[in-house]
Order: sequence, then structure tokens, then C-alpha cells
Amino acid sequence: MALIVEKYGGTSVGSIERINAVAEKVSRTHAAGNQMVIVVSAMSGETNRLLEMAKEISSDMPAREADVLVSTGEQVTIALLCMALIKNGEKARSYTGGQVRIETDTSHGRARIQNIDDSRIKKDLAKGKIIVVAGFQGVDSEGNITTLGRGGSDTSAVALAAALKADECRIYTDVDGVYTADPRIVPEAHRMDQITFEEMLELSSLGAKVLQIRAVEFAGKYKVPLRVLSSFEDGPGTLISYEVGRKMERAVIAGIAHNADEAKLTITGVPDHPGVAHSILGGIAEKGINVDMIIQNIAADETTDFTFTVPRADYESAKSILAKVSDELGARGVTGDNSIAKVSIVGMGMRSHTGVADLMFATLAEEGINIKMISTSEIKVSVVIDDKYTELAVRALHKAFELDKKLQ
Amino acid sequence: MALIVEKYGGTSVGSIERINAVAEKVSRTHAAGNQMVIVVSAMSGETNRLLEMAKEISSDMPAREADVLVSTGEQVTIALLCMALIKNGEKARSYTGGQVRIETDTSHGRARIQNIDDSRIKKDLAKGKIIVVAGFQGVDSEGNITTLGRGGSDTSAVALAAALKADECRIYTDVDGVYTADPRIVPEAHRMDQITFEEMLELSSLGAKVLQIRAVEFAGKYKVPLRVLSSFEDGPGTLISYEVGRKMERAVIAGIAHNADEAKLTITGVPDHPGVAHSILGGIAEKGINVDMIIQNIAADETTDFTFTVPRADYESAKSILAKVSDELGARGVTGDNSIAKVSIVGMGMRSHTGVADLMFATLAEEGINIKMISTSEIKVSVVIDDKYTELAVRALHKAFELDKKLQ
Repeated sequence: MALIVEKYGGTSVGSIERINAVAEKVSRTHAAGNQMVIVVSAMSGETNRLLEMAKEISSDMPAREADVLVSTGEQVTIALLCMALIKNGEKARSYTGGQVRIETDTSHGRARIQNIDDSRIKKDLAKGKIIVVAGFQGVDSEGNITTLGRGGSDTSAVALAAALKADECRIYTDVDGVYTADPRIVPEAHRMDQITFEEMLELSSLGAKVLQIRAVEFAGKYKVPLRVLSSFEDGPGTLISYEVGRKMERAVIAGIAHNADEAKLTITGVPDHPGVAHSILGGIAEKGINVDMIIQNIAADETTDFTFTVPRADYESAKSILAKVSDELGARGVTGDNSIAKVSIVGMGMRSHTGVADLMFATLAEEGINIKMISTSEIKVSVVIDDKYTELAVRALHKAFELDKKLQ
Repeated sequence: MALIVEKYGGTSVGSIERINAVAEKVSRTHAAGNQMVIVVSAMSGETNRLLEMAKEISSDMPAREADVLVSTGEQVTIALLCMALIKNGEKARSYTGGQVRIETDTSHGRARIQNIDDSRIKKDLAKGKIIVVAGFQGVDSEGNITTLGRGGSDTSAVALAAALKADECRIYTDVDGVYTADPRIVPEAHRMDQITFEEMLELSSLGAKVLQIRAVEFAGKYKVPLRVLSSFEDGPGTLISYEVGRKMERAVIAGIAHNADEAKLTITGVPDHPGVAHSILGGIAEKGINVDMIIQNIAADETTDFTFTVPRADYESAKSILAKVSDELGARGVTGDNSIAKVSIVGMGMRSHTGVADLMFATLAEEGINIKMISTSEIKVSVVIDDKYTELAVRALHKAFELDKKLQ
């Protein structure tokens, strides 16, 4: 008898019909002799409906009360899913985050899980009950309701799986697994049966938005066997593993990620002295703008050019902050480009194969694609290119690294 | 500095505009130097919206999960009201029933409050915070969410007022107080400044649906000063008192209640032996049908006629149950009337004034209204009449008992 934690996102429980379908699916897995803990999100659209009401009152939402408000979304889903399971003849029981209890710190809206009390759930599982837990939410040590931030239900599921020492944590989503590239761009892209934890981490952070990155980190920390599957069709999905299997070794890179939602900014001719990076990025960070790639070139004249990327939506506000910084620092000026894309190759195989980056650069050159920025990590090479070449670059790289030949 | 508990029902918080208006009102009372605890219901329509979703899944709703579901309604309101108060510059803090904590028994959907932990609220009040509590809900000793049943928010407010030893509990509703009769029927009816607890209890149970009867009982038990006011216009409302004031003694009766939503059933010629009443009413009670007035006449032939009233909606099902009972008991038969009304006069003054019932009967006779049933208590006389005479009877009695002359 295996203990399985399953997570269904907002789209998977977006209507009564779909909640009934999830109940059917859960009942089948339960009937096959497994113990089941189900984590659910709010029905799709519900969190936004609640936030719209709050915004009507005030644009400056007090964080504690925002959490009290939006946490009702998941609470509605757990009750409805339990009703559907009980209708199917199951013994089912719902728990809010506070009831479990999932204890977090007090950072409302982006709380981190600190402890999970698994005693009530274990007792219920022993009685043959199916447990349905509200994702995305917890309570702090004083019993205040907290939320983990958007997509936090993945983290709830992984944390519960870790606490319960579950045999597998299944994240049901609207795709049937992790692909070697976006199949909308590369028709030859295929679902990976397995991917390593490190690769998944890089792919998550690079815009392959299958799993929340914090959930992957959490899974890695506690070595939770994690599987991504489709809630709409049956299939094995993609298993995230913590060891590199024999088959996987043959693949140099696991997949190609892209993000066409970026912009880059350069401040040129900055007098080069200690503390420059902080002077430049301090104001950007204060505004809560995420900085992704950062490159600094030292020029011959003892000034430096400093380039970084930001989400495209933050381009204008970042640019105006930077213009002020430029004046203060006595820099030459600010240039920018908000029609760029980032393309990355990710794979454990890079560590033992040389020439991976070179093959990437050669492939892009052959297609006449100019590289504007490069950044590398141990298992990843990212380049910034003109966004109009995104699809072309991804397709060319997919072919060059022979991802169209299914190795696994 | 007074401690005031205020309760706002679903209509009073039915939109963002109204929530803002409630926040303004609360801020004013707080600014006048009072400590404030606010109890709110779900926004009007919300509870039904949630139940409709549940009914789509199953008509047979599991009670525990139904409570998890509907309790989200009040949780949304506490968050939104706190946001509105904070926008006004107040320090406000929301609590769900479980967070307070309001402990109840485990009767999901109709739980009874057993204990209230006032420590967190008292600490917050001492810091100048306005407390907003979700009405209608609590938790049992194991932390399962419970609800008190429709209208339970009144009970939550009174129970909190009792626990906190509040100086006053104000129930805001869509009427501006308790009237001597329904002003839609009797234009001369006037708002009472005060009414005794016992009178209010009789009026509540008689269809003057200003306050939930359990809330009134609770208030009486703990001698909570209770005031009914309008949330839409300013005014003193009606104070429910536990002592008869000087002015109040002059009034023989406090008010006239009517309920035109009744039906009566009679089973005739029942062989008279012990246990007959139970044989007759057992099946009715089993079906959850509320029986109100009960009258039994012993006839000369050692059979008995047994008459009782039920809500009009339950008339047909009660009649068919009774037909079966009649056969079993060897009774003569079943007759019924589903076009009756109950009219009652209520007043503490009855206890010391004779002839009150007689004046009622004489007044009705003068108008040619036939009395079909009579039932009396210490401070109430109820009669059942043909429902077409309801308005005429209420108006005639209002005049006969000089309620049009404002005594208070």
C-alpha cells in the first residue's frame, strides 16, 4: 500500500464538473489500494474575484486581511471535493491549512512553511479516509492565516508529502509532463519520462512554468519523488528524480527553455569603483523589480558598462530609475531593448561533456542569430537574442542537440 | 469608555459600498471613545451561491463539509470590513470563529456555543484595535468548523457580548427597532424604545422576525443589554431590558404579532387513552415539521379531537402522515385548514391586569371575526382566525389596546 499525495490546480477544479472528475480519478487510485492525500487550489478565477472586491475598497491591501480573504478560495474547493468523494461512497475529510496544521512564518502573502503536524492526517488515513487539504495556506505560530503566494499549492503538496514520507507526490496540471522544449514551437519536442531535480530547477526558473520553483526546491531538500501529470488525460507524466539513471546519461542536455517576456537595460560609462553594482541595482530592487541576468564589462578607460535583464512589464519604470542613477553616478548614459528573449539549454550531461556551449553558439550563428548576452551555470547556458528569433533558435537547438531523437 | 458589540447582517454588508458605510459608522462610534467588537454575516446572496454549488454535486450534503463551505462567506466579509476600517486609519483585526475561539458542540449546521476564549480579543482591544469577528461559525473541541444555523450571527454577537461583559450588544438590521405591530398593516404602529426580554422572546417566536430567538434566549441568560437598530438610518432603536421600567408599567400589552403562514390540522374521534398525543405527533416530528399550537378537547363519547398548527408549507405532507395515523388509531378522520393566521397579543402588563384576554375576544367579536383556536401563556394570548381577517384583527387590537397612543 503506497501513500500518494496528489495536487490539483485551479483549472483542474475550475467547475463542479471538473471537481466531480477529480473525485472519480482519486477514487480509482484509492480503490487500487493506495492511501490518498489530495491538495487543491482555489477554483480558477476565484482568487481574482476575491481580490477584485478588495481592490474596490483599497488599492493598498493590508497583507494579513488579504490572506484571510483569499484563503477562502481553497476552503471552498476542499469542501466541494469532499462532497463529491463522499457521494462516490468514500470516507473523505477536509482540512484547511490551519486545521492540518501547516505552520508558516508570518510573511503574509509569501509565507514559508516551517512545520507540519501530520498527526490528524495519519490517524484519518489509518481509518481509510481520503484527506483533502487546502493548498497555498497555513497559519503562523499565533494562528493567523497566511498564504504561500501564487502557485503555493505545489509547495503545500510537496511539504505534505515530505512530512508524511509519501511514496510519491503527483502534481496534476494542464500539461502531461515536462517537455524537451515548448511543443507549440517545436513539434518534435517530446515528454521526458524522467528529469533530474537540478534540471527541473533550472527549467522552472527559466519560464517552463510547469512547477513552482519553491516546490521543486522543497522536493529536492526532502528528496520527495515528484511527478508531473495531466489532470485531463491519463499517462505516466514526468518523474523528477534525484539520481541520474543509465538512460539519462546518454542525453547531453535535457531540454530547452525560453522566455520572451524580458527586456534588457545597459548603463554605459560608469566610473568603476567599489559599490557600483549596488548603486545601480539598489533602486531597482527597492521597487520590487526582479533582476535576472547581470553582466558587467570593464572597458579600457576605467569606466564600466553594466547590463541586466528585467521582466518586460517593468522595463519603463526600471529605465526611469536608471536614468536618475546614471546622473548621480556621472555615467555616460542609459540604453535599453525591450524586444529580447532568453533561450537556455539545460542538462546534467553538460558537466561531463565539453563543447556544449560551443555547439549552442555555432548553431545560432549558422541561423544568423546574433547573441546579445551570455550567462552560464554548471548545468545551463542562457543567451539573450532578438525576440523575433525565439522560435527559430529553440527549433534549431532542439535539432542540434538531437532532442528530436527520443533517447529515454 | 464603553465596550460595544455590534452585529451587521447580510444586507448591511451586501456590497462593497455598504461595507464602506459600515466601516464609517463603526469608526464614528470608535472615535467617540468606545471599544468595538463587530460581528458580521456573509454578504447577502453569498451563502446561497455556495450552497447552489454544493447542490450541483449532491442533494445529500455531508454536514461537516457543508460547514467548511458556507463558513467561507463570513470569512470574506471580515477581511473586507477590516480592509475598509484600515483604509479609514483604524487598527483593525479579523477573527474567524475558530480563531477567537468560539467553541461549540459538534452538531454541524445547528451547533450551540459552549465556550468563548476572550483572551486574544481583550488583548487587541487594550491596544486600541477594532475587532471584526465572523458570525454564525465556531469550532468544536477537535477544531472542526461548525455553524450555528441561519441567523446564527445574532447568537454569535450576543455570546461574544456576554463573554466580554460588553456594555451593550447592538443588532443592526433593516428595521429601526421593534414595533407595536407590523407598520405595513397598522400605520399607527410605533417603535418601542424599550421592551422586556420576555416580551421580545414571545414576539420573536411569533413571527416578528427581528431577532433570532436563540440570540434572545442567550441574551436573557447572561443579561446582555441588547439593542435593535437600523443599519441604514440613525436612531436609538429598541432596547431589550431585563427590568420593567416605570413607563413600561403603564402599558398593558407591548405589541401585537401575527403570522399568516400557518395551517391547522384536526384528527377527530380519536379513542382516548394514554399515549395518544405521541402517536399523533410522533410521525410529524420525525419528518422535522414544527408543530406550534396544540389543543385537545375531550368529547362525551370517550373519544377526543386533537388539533394543531404547522407551517403552511408542511400542510400537505403533515396531512398525509396524519391520514395514516388516523387509520392506525381507528379515529373518525382528518380535517384541515390551510388558510388560517395566528394573531397574538404580548405584554408583561397582562400578569397584573385582568380582562386582557376578554378585551381581545370582544374586539374580534365586534369585527365579526370568528376565533378557531385559543392558546395562552403568562404574557401572551394567541388566537387562530381565518387568514383573510389578519390585517383587520391586528388593526382593531392595536386600537383597542391603545397602542396608537405612544405611552413610553
